[in-house]
Amino acid sequence: MPDNTHIKFLLDEDEMPRSWYNIMADMPNPPAAVLHPGTHQPVTPDDLAPLFPMALIMQEVSTERYIDIPEPIRDVYRQWRPSPLYRARRLEKALDTTARIYYKYEGVSPAGSHKPNTAVAQAFYNKEEGVKKLSTETGAGQWGSALAMAGAFFNMDIEVFMVKVSYQQKPYRRNLMQTFGATVHASPSNLTNAGRGILAQDPENMGSLGIAISEAVEVAAMSGGTTKYSLGSVLNHVLMHQTVIGQEALLQMERAGDYPDVVIGCAGGGSNYAGISFPFIGEKLRRGLKTRFVAAEPMACPSLTKGIYAYDFGDTVGMTPLVKMHTLGHDFMPPGIHAGGLRYHGMAPLISQLHEEGIIDARAYHQNATFEAAVQFARAEGIVPAPEAGHAIKAAIEEALNAKEAGESPVILFNLSGHGHFDMASYDAYFAGRLQDYEYPAEAVAEAQKRMPQVV
Amino acid sequence: MPDNTHIKFLLDEDEMPRSWYNIMADMPNPPAAVLHPGTHQPVTPDDLAPLFPMALIMQEVSTERYIDIPEPIRDVYRQWRPSPLYRARRLEKALDTTARIYYKYEGVSPAGSHKPNTAVAQAFYNKEEGVKKLSTETGAGQWGSALAMAGAFFNMDIEVFMVKVSYQQKPYRRNLMQTFGATVHASPSNLTNAGRGILAQDPENMGSLGIAISEAVEVAAMSGGTTKYSLGSVLNHVLMHQTVIGQEALLQMERAGDYPDVVIGCAGGGSNYAGISFPFIGEKLRRGLKTRFVAAEPMACPSLTKGIYAYDFGDTVGMTPLVKMHTLGHDFMPPGIHAGGLRYHGMAPLISQLHEEGIIDARAYHQNATFEAAVQFARAEGIVPAPEAGHAIKAAIEEALNAKEAGESPVILFNLSGHGHFDMASYDAYFAGRLQDYEYPAEAVAEAQKRMPQVV
Repeated sequence: MPDNTHIKFLLDEDEMPRSWYNIMADMPNPPAAVLHPGTHQPVTPDDLAPLFPMALIMQEVSTERYIDIPEPIRDVYRQWRPSPLYRARRLEKALDTTARIYYKYEGVSPAGSHKPNTAVAQAFYNKEEGVKKLSTETGAGQWGSALAMAGAFFNMDIEVFMVKVSYQQKPYRRNLMQTFGATVHASPSNLTNAGRGILAQDPENMGSLGIAISEAVEVAAMSGGTTKYSLGSVLNHVLMHQTVIGQEALLQMERAGDYPDVVIGCAGGGSNYAGISFPFIGEKLRRGLKTRFVAAEPMACPSLTKGIYAYDFGDTVGMTPLVKMHTLGHDFMPPGIHAGGLRYHGMAPLISQLHEEGIIDARAYHQNATFEAAVQFARAEGIVPAPEAGHAIKAAIEEALNAKEAGESPVILFNLSGHGHFDMASYDAYFAGRLQDYEYPAEAVAEAQKRMPQVV
Repeated sequence: MPDNTHIKFLLDEDEMPRSWYNIMADMPNPPAAVLHPGTHQPVTPDDLAPLFPMALIMQEVSTERYIDIPEPIRDVYRQWRPSPLYRARRLEKALDTTARIYYKYEGVSPAGSHKPNTAVAQAFYNKEEGVKKLSTETGAGQWGSALAMAGAFFNMDIEVFMVKVSYQQKPYRRNLMQTFGATVHASPSNLTNAGRGILAQDPENMGSLGIAISEAVEVAAMSGGTTKYSLGSVLNHVLMHQTVIGQEALLQMERAGDYPDVVIGCAGGGSNYAGISFPFIGEKLRRGLKTRFVAAEPMACPSLTKGIYAYDFGDTVGMTPLVKMHTLGHDFMPPGIHAGGLRYHGMAPLISQLHEEGIIDARAYHQNATFEAAVQFARAEGIVPAPEAGHAIKAAIEEALNAKEAGESPVILFNLSGHGHFDMASYDAYFAGRLQDYEYPAEAVAEAQKRMPQVV
């Protein structure tokens, strides 16, 4: 019986998860190997050691179901975790739906999104192994500000390559990183070979996540070990750190007296969607449940719905290992949609494989539709969502309205991955009718495929 | 014994206060009468009826110690209330202080500050009495966005007169109000006699809270009853609605095993400071405690530390009743400091009287010093404070450092009234060295006094 008297389901501090959940333990098939970019042979831990601390490399390949969360990380987490789970009663009323809609809210973290869940963990493990500085990339700035905050907590230097178009359009995110003490560069920059190479070909290049990754990886690789590289999504260990979200939600849904029929999240690199869904997917796989899983992505950068499942680089220049994933091609330059966190050419290998195996569905939306959903949500629930999270809201509203049509009463759970306080200019553009909807050209993937690495 | 194992002290939803606390029941002396601006006679409820619903007028003059919070208001409150109380352990460590520092965090409300505590209440009571629309003013935009949100929840139209300098400098706050569905005008505007009068004298006038109040009051007064006026601070009932903050903090400090030696907040109109302090002042007055109370205000607009205690208008044009308060003169135009919420010529009458009676101390700070404190706090605690709250942090850090000097271990409690996500441009200006410190001229009050209403 659902609890119809509460709208907020909190957990005690001591109910915060004590371990991360590793979905590799429950997947029907082992994940595809990660390949060396030069030899196309499986990478070894030693290959990755210049970029990552050994503890994270070991997490990347672990098949243990649970990995303990060290106490210093939990100590930081508990400032805002367990995060609240809400029943969206006012939204349900506004939609006049028979569905019960729940959302997990990760915007309560000091950086305003789910990103600190892994930023704090990565800073901790690097600090433990004596690393002084972390380099990273950021698009919209959610990830960069999370790592900047973690760097402030663990007294580490943070150097962020921020996609140039966002650096110019989102000065407040940049100011936030600087307030936390980080150094922020517009990417492509003149500070790296990768950046100089891009600028030599195209001095007006406005940057992409792929290019910024190339720059940040180069800084770490050339540092002689003092600087390591930190990634905010895509990798197995990053997704695993986010599973605190779904583990808490499992317990909170139980308190609410409900269990989701469908679990929804937006997906760019895949980390917030993994966070909310993996623990529920684990339940489904182990217990044979019928739960549906929906990843919502932008029409302008539709890796799961339009990309191909193939080996590709994680960055634009081709410095990273090759991973098997849904990709639009490592040189794909996504249009300047306002959900900057979803402008990535690839998708996390674990999410890609689960999609390929039919466990996760994906849907793509145009940005105007996601802003319309976000505004409806804001007026009902008071929380202004990040444009990325607007994609999850759009999918949740679609599910709720379909249920009403069909006379059904499903339980819908989505992850509200962050607030939109730093994205108000995007709302302004939406209200002014200045947002453009971009269709991904059907022939583009076949073209991109020709430029992808040919793995035998 | 303080609880040294936790940093966050939460309360259950059912521990949220069931009533507001009315300090008038415990004050040593009754508050000074509010006077009609024309006759200088005490105002009657009927005099106020064109502006406010009767329920709020009755709260304004009530001397009952507790007033029940209606269930529909609690229903909205419980989305984010009880708000967390934190032990600032990382800040204590950064300061190397022997003090124990706690902060109550009101930035968890969807609008990002304490303002929804009264916005929701005011919207509810107006709705109950059939009012269709509320007019209001806003400076930095914290109040306007809170009322816009409450209007969305209760399906009421909200019309906001936003001080022109903020309208232009803080487009994101304006976008936030618009996202909630409110109509926002730059003040002074051509929509009111008050605005037209100011613009006729000075077409380049950048506005002030006093002018914006005149405009919003006029819209309500001329509406024939369909529109009422809503104020975000200063008035007794507004301060009372905020006492949920301090009542929760009393209980949370008890859970923390501590009791504050000093209670700190920033003070502009006085509502957040009343919210945190009044319940503790009540304890002091009833139980004879030694607790100290510190209100922190800007040097540029120092009503408590430099103003005179006299009858004055709440607005610039002279449309509001006369209240006895600390004032810099109703025509004082505060310099454009970034803590827009503290740019008000007066102070809440209740706070003023408590200050006059020696129960509350006040201190004034320059804005560069408050931003320095805010950045130190952000790097330690992860939360970027609103510039207004930076004043409270500055005072708390000062207390902590003094304690270290004196070899004492006091318990410091301050209210972190809101986050600074919409104020990042101010941080940018601070880092760039572009913030000016303004000294209030010593002779200004005597000059202003000549223009104040002469009440016999």
